[in-house]
Amino acid sequence: MNTPSSNLPSPDANRLWSAIMDLSALVDSDSPGWTREVFSDPYKASRAWTLARMKDAGLQAHVDGAGNIVGRLPGTNPNAPAIVTGSHTDTVHSGGRFDGVVGVLGAIEAARVLQESGTRLTSDLIIMDFLGEEANGFGVSCVGSRAVAGVLDAAHLARRDANGVSMGEAVAAFGADPNQAISMAWNPRDIKSYIELHVEQGPMLERSGSQIGVVTSIAGIERVMAVFTGRADHAGTTPMDQRADALLAAAEAILTVERVGCGAPVHGVSTTGRIATGHGAFNVVPDSATIWAEIRSIDPGWLGGARRSIAEKIALDAAQRGVEVAIDLLNDQDPVPAAQTMQDTVAAASDDLGYSWEAVPSGAGHDAAHMAHLGPMGMIFVPSQGGRSHCPDEFTDKVQLSNGVHVLANTIRRLDLA
Amino acid sequence: MNTPSSNLPSPDANRLWSAIMDLSALVDSDSPGWTREVFSDPYKASRAWTLARMKDAGLQAHVDGAGNIVGRLPGTNPNAPAIVTGSHTDTVHSGGRFDGVVGVLGAIEAARVLQESGTRLTSDLIIMDFLGEEANGFGVSCVGSRAVAGVLDAAHLARRDANGVSMGEAVAAFGADPNQAISMAWNPRDIKSYIELHVEQGPMLERSGSQIGVVTSIAGIERVMAVFTGRADHAGTTPMDQRADALLAAAEAILTVERVGCGAPVHGVSTTGRIATGHGAFNVVPDSATIWAEIRSIDPGWLGGARRSIAEKIALDAAQRGVEVAIDLLNDQDPVPAAQTMQDTVAAASDDLGYSWEAVPSGAGHDAAHMAHLGPMGMIFVPSQGGRSHCPDEFTDKVQLSNGVHVLANTIRRLDLA
Repeated sequence: MNTPSSNLPSPDANRLWSAIMDLSALVDSDSPGWTREVFSDPYKASRAWTLARMKDAGLQAHVDGAGNIVGRLPGTNPNAPAIVTGSHTDTVHSGGRFDGVVGVLGAIEAARVLQESGTRLTSDLIIMDFLGEEANGFGVSCVGSRAVAGVLDAAHLARRDANGVSMGEAVAAFGADPNQAISMAWNPRDIKSYIELHVEQGPMLERSGSQIGVVTSIAGIERVMAVFTGRADHAGTTPMDQRADALLAAAEAILTVERVGCGAPVHGVSTTGRIATGHGAFNVVPDSATIWAEIRSIDPGWLGGARRSIAEKIALDAAQRGVEVAIDLLNDQDPVPAAQTMQDTVAAASDDLGYSWEAVPSGAGHDAAHMAHLGPMGMIFVPSQGGRSHCPDEFTDKVQLSNGVHVLANTIRRLDLA
Repeated sequence: MNTPSSNLPSPDANRLWSAIMDLSALVDSDSPGWTREVFSDPYKASRAWTLARMKDAGLQAHVDGAGNIVGRLPGTNPNAPAIVTGSHTDTVHSGGRFDGVVGVLGAIEAARVLQESGTRLTSDLIIMDFLGEEANGFGVSCVGSRAVAGVLDAAHLARRDANGVSMGEAVAAFGADPNQAISMAWNPRDIKSYIELHVEQGPMLERSGSQIGVVTSIAGIERVMAVFTGRADHAGTTPMDQRADALLAAAEAILTVERVGCGAPVHGVSTTGRIATGHGAFNVVPDSATIWAEIRSIDPGWLGGARRSIAEKIALDAAQRGVEVAIDLLNDQDPVPAAQTMQDTVAAASDDLGYSWEAVPSGAGHDAAHMAHLGPMGMIFVPSQGGRSHCPDEFTDKVQLSNGVHVLANTIRRLDLA
């Protein structure tokens, strides 16, 4: 592996922090925490800000047909395949300020460091702010990176939210072009590699005290929806042993989902994120309930087994209660390993700069999982305080962020020299 | 005890059945089953029908200040305390055709039998269609019978529903007078006894094959509301052992509620009728959940112990998960025993008519529980097919209904002679 003759200097930690704080002001003021959901007005407003921010940093920037913001720092060889980096700036409802944002604004800061240090890359550096990475009301995540990777299709656009609006309609109303979004796949030959900086969103780096996480793999996600149908009976007069209580079956299922996740031998988690019931009166035995659960692991073998064992146990328990259950299994995302060469490059850059690092799995999904279709993929994590994420308490301090951008910039330089 | 020289004849089973079917047409056509909830338009429309039905049956009928429909069949002695019977004609959401309705239309049929057989009572017979017996959006049940019994107060009227409307406002908008409703208590000296015919709403009579249920006691109701507050975390990145998952704590609590109800040595049931959660995303550990549960028994000792044991177990389990829980305990109704003399009278009337009977508890609450404040209270049950109630499948056949009215009419006659 080539090593650079000298390291790039540290980024401007205050400039990066100010940018993150400025963007965090562009949120839905009626929602708690930081809420800038895809297709919302605050998200729309934020995109003009991000586009301007890229241009201010000397990038050639535009919005593509899928609604991604694309910034380019041209290299010396226009025929060389590009190095791509970036992330997203949408949030979950009541989210934080760092998830995704760090990968976009950190990449812009890295581009400034390259320019300010007089470092000209051979390859173009492309910085992406991907449209809508978080799971949206249509049940689709990573809209923009799927488009670029060529894995967004008409079925995604046809999905409807609770209001009956299709995602294609939402994309069009947002000012992007749904037809382009499903026909704009990049050519892998044009891409040298993809590297994404992100907050860990988990507690491992904080626990071990490591400054940098070298991501080994992005967890796969299996989703389980279970619809329970029991029988409505008078809650005062129906003996306990003659009920078909859908809510009890759902409660048992929720605990089954937990138990299976707790039994993962290596890496695995499982969560019931949502429950919905029928009309619901105080004095009627509930006749319907639906739960939505997910299982994640970087281990495809465990993931498949866990999914099967949850589904079988739920069906068995419900049958014993006389409750019918319809189980819908959905493979959302297979585990995606980071390229070994990318892991090595991030580790080498960290070592060279004197930052402690640790190999960690990513429990969260990322745009990187889709970008892996186009070339070698790697990710750099920085610690999350208390492991908190997808909530207002999400926090990574100024120095930790700056360390991450420092490693990102030097990783990009190493990738360019490789 | 006096016994009548001869029994009253059987009621007109077809006339009773037609009346029940006619009333069942006056429901909310946008809701499933038979839905005629208190304060709703269909309920309002039905009250004119019921008032006319009473007048057609030769009763002096009017609507009182609390919105109750009051029909009177004058006795020979205007100074004698009255015999009161009746029930209610409102339903739960997606309810059935018989709950409550049988006690009102059956009483009107009994009044016809008395008149058609030339039987003149000494006491006035008062037939009540009590306003809103089912638990409503304000969390109040038995509005009309509470008013008559003098146990409806300003605090009830001040309760607000999910739309912020107070019950007092709803009572006024319905055309009744909230001020009168809390100041119209009847004088116990004017009441000789209260007898109510009702469908069992449970499976005991059908199981044993008895035609008539002689109610021994009306179950008390304790309500438990538990609000769980955990911590929102990323569902992909937060290890299972570092979560404070409010939905898991709620699921465990729901199963605790069941377990305690299943352990009742004599008569007891417990039900979690409703759960609500926060915003709810697929990929966020749920940070809030609320459950509403109730416990019922005719045994006040068990009821108190069950309530305490549910609350303690829920608090303990939640604490072990790092989830905070606020538990609100509400005594909704103490168990109300039927007067022994009333039980004896119903049993004697059944024996005399050749109907098999059985002593049964009432797991459901009834207007009778409040009317017991005014004098000796008794209830007559007829079988419910499959024990089903508070659902569209609720069913009692024409002959069973007629048997119940036959016992009601003869019980009234015995009470008058006693």
